[in-house]
Amino acid sequence: MNINKLPWRTIWLEADQRSVGIIDQTKLPHQFETVRLRTADEAAHAIRAMLVRGAPLIGAAAAWGVFLGLLEDSSDAGLDAVCAKLLLARPTAVNLRWAVGRMRRVLAPLPPEQRADAARSEAAAVCEEDVRTNEAIGQHGLRLIEEQYRRTSQPVRILTHCNAGWLATVDWGTALAPVFKAQQAGIPLHVWVDETRPRNQGAQLTAWELASAGIGHRLIADNSGGWLMRQGQVDLCIVGTDRTTACGDVCNKIGTYLKALAAADNKVPFYVALPGSTVDWTLEDGMAIPIEERDEDEVLFVSGLAEDGQVRRVRIAPERTRAANPAFDVTPARLVTGLITERGICAASREGLRSLFPEHS
Amino acid sequence: MNINKLPWRTIWLEADQRSVGIIDQTKLPHQFETVRLRTADEAAHAIRAMLVRGAPLIGAAAAWGVFLGLLEDSSDAGLDAVCAKLLLARPTAVNLRWAVGRMRRVLAPLPPEQRADAARSEAAAVCEEDVRTNEAIGQHGLRLIEEQYRRTSQPVRILTHCNAGWLATVDWGTALAPVFKAQQAGIPLHVWVDETRPRNQGAQLTAWELASAGIGHRLIADNSGGWLMRQGQVDLCIVGTDRTTACGDVCNKIGTYLKALAAADNKVPFYVALPGSTVDWTLEDGMAIPIEERDEDEVLFVSGLAEDGQVRRVRIAPERTRAANPAFDVTPARLVTGLITERGICAASREGLRSLFPEHS
Repeated sequence: MNINKLPWRTIWLEADQRSVGIIDQTKLPHQFETVRLRTADEAAHAIRAMLVRGAPLIGAAAAWGVFLGLLEDSSDAGLDAVCAKLLLARPTAVNLRWAVGRMRRVLAPLPPEQRADAARSEAAAVCEEDVRTNEAIGQHGLRLIEEQYRRTSQPVRILTHCNAGWLATVDWGTALAPVFKAQQAGIPLHVWVDETRPRNQGAQLTAWELASAGIGHRLIADNSGGWLMRQGQVDLCIVGTDRTTACGDVCNKIGTYLKALAAADNKVPFYVALPGSTVDWTLEDGMAIPIEERDEDEVLFVSGLAEDGQVRRVRIAPERTRAANPAFDVTPARLVTGLITERGICAASREGLRSLFPEHS
Repeated sequence: MNINKLPWRTIWLEADQRSVGIIDQTKLPHQFETVRLRTADEAAHAIRAMLVRGAPLIGAAAAWGVFLGLLEDSSDAGLDAVCAKLLLARPTAVNLRWAVGRMRRVLAPLPPEQRADAARSEAAAVCEEDVRTNEAIGQHGLRLIEEQYRRTSQPVRILTHCNAGWLATVDWGTALAPVFKAQQAGIPLHVWVDETRPRNQGAQLTAWELASAGIGHRLIADNSGGWLMRQGQVDLCIVGTDRTTACGDVCNKIGTYLKALAAADNKVPFYVALPGSTVDWTLEDGMAIPIEERDEDEVLFVSGLAEDGQVRRVRIAPERTRAANPAFDVTPARLVTGLITERGICAASREGLRSLFPEHS
């Protein structure tokens, strides 16, 4: 997507064909810095330290990490070592395991001297597939925005939660892909950006993506979206998802459920954008998904740019107060108007999902 | 209420009988400081600069401000001047107008030499009435907590939003009065404290009140409460209100509506605590209440204690991002289980309110 009218991706092969560039997302939104990864160790660190984040981007970074490792040592032992190293970078990330497994399957059968070139091609293919999938999600979601615009000829007002934008993927994003497509189609837009406490991905990443792309938006406290819907100031909600069950229950960043309740109460369409790969076909009931309880310091402290120009962390609560920090919640399918996938839009139900993904019937 | 086992109020006449003590609430939760007000100017400043805040406490501070002004000049002109000065401190605060009007009605007919003593008595009476009203709210709300405890013999888990504690009043508070009463009755408690973005009154004030009183609590992001209810971790919600319509619609801090939706979706009782004086008997539909749109910097910046020990403000969003900041929302009566008033608990409806306040029929 564009940053100040220049096209970027979140990860790319550098011109020397031996190193990989990334945007250091830990510095956003206050500084825009790119980092060049030259070794598998540097790739693993970038994943571990969250210079890259978002499930699809973590997968892409791991694929490139395998390539960088094979440049150093393309033997069987070298392949084993780099895969093991990358898998440890964030042990729970599903896309990381998927990408490393895919690279290994392609590369292990090849003679060592062919592996680095093949890894370069395969990592590039992982990235291109992610871009194509997300762009297709964008194209399908665009229809919803177009329909709204045709009805009213007014700027389409979209509420989103957390960051499911291009920074979480190689390009386009999931929930924001339809927004970027609509901008390209010349549809006037206004995006309500939930700040998304406690980690503020909305304030730090979604707002930055939209500002960089020149898309009209306002940051709001997570508390505000329901009231905006009651006042008729939201036409459409679009969010991402970390995991969706075979019945359409949606596990996403904490707070998604509250917005879905408000959307239902005010008859605002509530859509979830996702690549088919994030559907867990083995699971029916979203309440069975284990929810990560994260460090309470994420609630007790807030980071931002201080008036002295330094990024600082401030404590917002009394010393003696502790916090609870569930990272995700589960929105029941009954509150979801539809799922926007790379194959089209379907109902958030077993029948809906299987109509688009019959291979999982 | 107690701070480290010592009883405090938010405002008091000092032993010299010529000055008034307050807690400087702008310093909480990181510093506990009291300030002595010696003149009407100092009282007006304390109200304007929000050293005291919360509608009932603003009223009490204004009453004491009239007293301080009359110590300096108890002539008719002096009374006029001090009333005018205090009314300007926060022009939109209803309780301020009410308290200044009450003082003037009592004092104007008296000979100047009797006014200061009468003002001292009347300001003390304003405070005592506020304490009695809130304590009665606490006593009625206590029944709900007792019933829950009798049913389960487990710690009663209460969720609250914003700060409707004793710091907003002279003592006891409204939404937290039943919690303090329950603590005194020996009922084990666990309070979920919404941080209440953008101004973080939950993190800064409610958490501090509970920590100071030794009541078990956890700070949570505003996003978390719905998920906690879905998981059965909330027995009861109690919030305050800034204005309630004659039909029971509740205008309160932004985000209240989202919690009420979640409570209804999960069959968690949702109560609103209020003195009868905050009912607007002239208004039926809450959607007619004008909602204050506050400065966007409240969303774009967060204040807290930095690691260098200074209270600092940090910017959480990109420079080019603007914010929207509606300060309140309206929860429709259909989502409110009941209203806890100083006269008892009633349904959030015209009939319910008129049963307790028949003088408004």
